[in-house]
Amino acid sequence: MAMILSKNALVLWLTGLSGAGKTTLARHIARELESGGKAVERLDGDVLRGYFPSTGFTREARDEHILRVGFMASLLAKHGIIVVCSFISPYRQARRKVRQMCHNFIEVYVKASLAECERRDVKGLYTRARAGEVRNFTGLDDPYEEPENPELVIDTEKMTEQEAVQTIINYLKKHLDV
Amino acid sequence: MAMILSKNALVLWLTGLSGAGKTTLARHIARELESGGKAVERLDGDVLRGYFPSTGFTREARDEHILRVGFMASLLAKHGIIVVCSFISPYRQARRKVRQMCHNFIEVYVKASLAECERRDVKGLYTRARAGEVRNFTGLDDPYEEPENPELVIDTEKMTEQEAVQTIINYLKKHLDV
Repeated sequence: MAMILSKNALVLWLTGLSGAGKTTLARHIARELESGGKAVERLDGDVLRGYFPSTGFTREARDEHILRVGFMASLLAKHGIIVVCSFISPYRQARRKVRQMCHNFIEVYVKASLAECERRDVKGLYTRARAGEVRNFTGLDDPYEEPENPELVIDTEKMTEQEAVQTIINYLKKHLDV
Repeated sequence: MAMILSKNALVLWLTGLSGAGKTTLARHIARELESGGKAVERLDGDVLRGYFPSTGFTREARDEHILRVGFMASLLAKHGIIVVCSFISPYRQARRKVRQMCHNFIEVYVKASLAECERRDVKGLYTRARAGEVRNFTGLDDPYEEPENPELVIDTEKMTEQEAVQTIINYLKKHLDV
């Protein structure tokens, strides 16, 4: 199937704690948009850090990382590609800067309580952080600044995966004619 | 005019000393391809460092920078965008890694002798480097590893700007049906 570039380029930005469900949602949303014939690219925190393992976890390193990702997303979106980004991106200021870089920046707060994320502990990272093996861990010894005015809040403790995906897709269809 | 995504996604990578003529050539090539209706993106060393001023000049920092750029280029090219990159990119190994990341990587060695680049000194950087105000300057106190098997060598001491642009465009047309 030929890919269709969107008239409405957009950057869908999923932010939230580790384990809140960002990557899973991003994967489903990308698949749904692609099955509608859209040109979609996914940028994901774990994947990007896998490519660039020297990326640090200080505020400065995190902010620079997020800005680089934002720049990358803005270039892709400029060419009509829908970019689905999943990054903890804990700092408001960095998210705000990325918003300014991108045309149609849709910030989705993928929300789950710290207790719930720790209970899920999909990657075993909370256990390792509590054991002191991982430092600068968002939510524990590093801050997470909740979005103040996100386009959407998706509470993954209250919504099923399917409901969450549909809510986001509906938002894109309604507001951006995607 | 509607932009045409290339059937043959490609990354055109211009490497060479500061002042060799990379950015000028990149600008002309991008304009020529765009005027043919192609979707083109330019990534340029000075521009990228302008966005991310904390990028250093050690080998490690340069290599990571080039890899990030290569990753960015590969994503754009994957979606059919012709990516024209102009970076000193002094190390063979980093260029090789970027080549591996990208489908249709065309390496162009934009060649001019150090003496000639220093004579041109368009940005006044050689003067500043000679005065000790700039360190880790490629060609002076930092190495430049010439490409061993570039797709093209463009000697800007022997060719006019127009000849250089035409040589590169002809190569793309002949080898990639761009």
